Amino acid sequence: MSSTAGQVIRCKAAVAWEAGKPLVIEEVEVAPPQKMEVRLKILYTSLCHTDVYFWEANKGQNTVFPRILGHEAGAIVESIGEGVTDLAPGDHVLPVFTGECKECAHCKSAVSNMCSLLRINTDRGVMIHDEKSRFSIKGKPIYHFLGTSTFSEYTVVHVGCVAKINPLAPLEKVCVLSCGISTGLGATLNVAKPEKGSTVAVFGLGAVGLAAAEGARIAGASRIIGVDLNASRFLPAKKFGVTEFVNPKDYNKPVQEVIAEMTNGGVDRSIECTGNVDAMISAFECVHDGWGVAVLVGVPHKDAVFKTRPINFLNERTLKGTFFGNYKPRSDIPSVVEKYMNKELEVEKFITHEVSFSEINKAFDYMLKGEGIRCIIRMEG
Amino acid sequence: MSSTAGQVIRCKAAVAWEAGKPLVIEEVEVAPPQKMEVRLKILYTSLCHTDVYFWEANKGQNTVFPRILGHEAGAIVESIGEGVTDLAPGDHVLPVFTGECKECAHCKSAVSNMCSLLRINTDRGVMIHDEKSRFSIKGKPIYHFLGTSTFSEYTVVHVGCVAKINPLAPLEKVCVLSCGISTGLGATLNVAKPEKGSTVAVFGLGAVGLAAAEGARIAGASRIIGVDLNASRFLPAKKFGVTEFVNPKDYNKPVQEVIAEMTNGGVDRSIECTGNVDAMISAFECVHDGWGVAVLVGVPHKDAVFKTRPINFLNERTLKGTFFGNYKPRSDIPSVVEKYMNKELEVEKFITHEVSFSEINKAFDYMLKGEGIRCIIRMEG
Ligand SMILES: NC(=O)c1ccc[n+]([C@@H]2O[C@H](COP(=O)([O-])OP(=O)(O)OC[C@H]3O[C@@H](n4cnc5c(N)ncnc54)[C@H](O)[C@@H]3O)[C@@H](O)[C@H]2O)c1
Ligand SMILES: NC(=O)c1ccc[n+]([C@@H]2O[C@H](COP(=O)([O-])OP(=O)(O)OC[C@H]3O[C@@H](n4cnc5c(N)ncnc54)[C@H](O)[C@@H]3O)[C@@H](O)[C@H]2O)c1
Ligand SMILES: [Zn+2]
Ligand SMILES: [Zn+2]
Ligand SMILES: [Zn+2]
Ligand SMILES: [Zn+2]
Repeated sequence: MSSTAGQVIRCKAAVAWEAGKPLVIEEVEVAPPQKMEVRLKILYTSLCHTDVYFWEANKGQNTVFPRILGHEAGAIVESIGEGVTDLAPGDHVLPVFTGECKECAHCKSAVSNMCSLLRINTDRGVMIHDEKSRFSIKGKPIYHFLGTSTFSEYTVVHVGCVAKINPLAPLEKVCVLSCGISTGLGATLNVAKPEKGSTVAVFGLGAVGLAAAEGARIAGASRIIGVDLNASRFLPAKKFGVTEFVNPKDYNKPVQEVIAEMTNGGVDRSIECTGNVDAMISAFECVHDGWGVAVLVGVPHKDAVFKTRPINFLNERTLKGTFFGNYKPRSDIPSVVEKYMNKELEVEKFITHEVSFSEINKAFDYMLKGEGIRCIIRMEG
Repeated sequence: MSSTAGQVIRCKAAVAWEAGKPLVIEEVEVAPPQKMEVRLKILYTSLCHTDVYFWEANKGQNTVFPRILGHEAGAIVESIGEGVTDLAPGDHVLPVFTGECKECAHCKSAVSNMCSLLRINTDRGVMIHDEKSRFSIKGKPIYHFLGTSTFSEYTVVHVGCVAKINPLAPLEKVCVLSCGISTGLGATLNVAKPEKGSTVAVFGLGAVGLAAAEGARIAGASRIIGVDLNASRFLPAKKFGVTEFVNPKDYNKPVQEVIAEMTNGGVDRSIECTGNVDAMISAFECVHDGWGVAVLVGVPHKDAVFKTRPINFLNERTLKGTFFGNYKPRSDIPSVVEKYMNKELEVEKFITHEVSFSEINKAFDYMLKGEGIRCIIRMEG
């Protein structure tokens, strides 16, 4: 039993007071975990686009402020709340922005990971149990983000949003498996499922797309075609197994036609990781008839409409979408960490920057400038 | 060796001389089968919408006339051409409007049945081997249809378009497995693959949709929801396992919402057998998030556009299309006949009418009036 269990912990957190304004490191109070909650000591966290998106809050996002952002992290359980049986203080864990209650129809389904209770909720700033925040400054609530709020030395998370991982795994590396990397990896390995020797197209070579390419490399794809409008994404993508590049801007015909010509009728699998609806349509239409499967990962503008001619389906193409790479956070994420441990999955190449907690705003700058892939934020010294 | 082998056969055929005009029973010459072809004696044939569609030829269809229509049939091999090794005179067979060459990438794929060589071609009126017709009247060619032209006592077909079946199977019944029934059945069993106990929606209760429902019944679905704009389709559909009916006209909200409410969020599987693009969209949007799979079967207007919000995919729904129920004609259709032989599949209930060959235009009348499901045409007596 840690000496802090059951006590309010005072610690440092990076608070987003207002949309678009630099985070401020503050001393916050973190209440003990309640029923089915755990309190985590965050050791490493990393920045994902989704944090930046809800911090900017200038495109119609909800604006829950003040808020503690952050959802990719490596942590150790500090204490557990009532009813928690499968985690104990000292466990090494990754918090996840979506959950697995293990009770609902989705959790019981062999394929879905869209838990009815703990499915991602970007609007909620409080815990489910009592609709209150566990963070405060001088008694005034500071709100949660994605149920994780990892930009804090301590945070409180629902037990369903915590993956217990191999304690030998280096948290400063596997922390990036909390979100984007697993999303892209799972989109390929769990949903697109390319066979060995197949040809795979990846649309969008950000962190998610590079992870999708990494999945294709792991699956033994013989050709991995990277598609991006930003040519600066091409060189770094080579490390992720991308063998060929297509910039739609270089052609005056639809990129799906370019790809069909390169591949004798289409790729076996394609994975869309852009969030752009035109790329989604191209990703679907560039798969081979008869057996091609396209997987959508990117989150599009809410008014976007996907359009295609039905014959593209009737010619035996499949279109699927995925959320968090179809991984169930508690059941499956530990095995993703194992893929790193047994050297199948290379995590290091996703980590391009590292800063201390006090420099967290630098991580935002890197991402805003489009520099690098993941920036690790060290919580201690 | 039959005495007619290698000879021109003179026999009766129903010739479509002009679009929309009654077929005329004529004496035709049927040339011997050439390389990789077989000549079949048709015993029973049945009428499918596709025959009527290309006979009407009033919606932009090609107009290859004079032509011998017909593509659902039960037949016996009369003679074989050069290079044919896996069929012999006397074999019981079903001709199929699409083929399986066993050599191309599609035929070698475990999933595709869209053979590059023998894929359906509604424009072609001649044989592939020499681009000539095997039918003539007084030396003038009469064209083929779908490579089958079963409205003739004898026809010539590419060996890749012939399924060799159990000789004990009654040809007057299993002839209907050549096209529409297998299409719907396979859409469910091979593509949608509902689990036992699941809820399945079938859009369109024509022959194809009823066969899709029959597939769901065979798979052990616990609820089969039939959707049709034509209420007269509902009563007969009960025999095919349909447990509930929805007529979109009875509601002033989209039918996908009606179905979601009936099923606690959506059906597990849906199969669209209408050819209407709005039904396709509804069929997709009515499947449950997390695990729902929708399958498109209907052939839409060529300018139709399928539209949906990408979030419907991202919430882990799958959309597939199928052609001929994903059955490979030679490899798989014999096993569909076996399903009938072992009483899994009930074929009799699809057969609502029977006429003699001389009355073939009656079969067209029944279909044009929307009466019944399949009309068997007896070639003899
Ligand atoms: N990052 C995550 O954790 C996460 C998790 C789940 C889903 N997603 C979604 O996945 C998508 C990718 O995330 P990311 O972090 O890799 O983003 P990113 O912005 O780093 O990468 C997206 C890439 O797509 C490219 N692109 C944009 N439009 C394109 C087009 N029409 N054709 C080709 N390329 C195009 C951009 O140039 C960019 O390189 C986003 O929509 C995101 O919301 C992300
Ligand atoms: N018949 C075949 O052999 C075959 C083979 C492959 C594909 N197809 C395609 O499958 C489809 C069905 O074939 P069929 O022979 O059963 O046709 P059909 O015309 O007998 O049946 C179609 C049914 O769909 C209903 N329908 C039409 N629009 C609808 C809507 N918006 N919502 C609900 N119901 C609607 C009609 O009322 C009708 O009952 C066609 O598009 C056909 O081209 C047919
Ligand atoms: Zn759940
Ligand atoms: Zn993220
Ligand atoms: Zn083939
Ligand atoms: Zn047909």
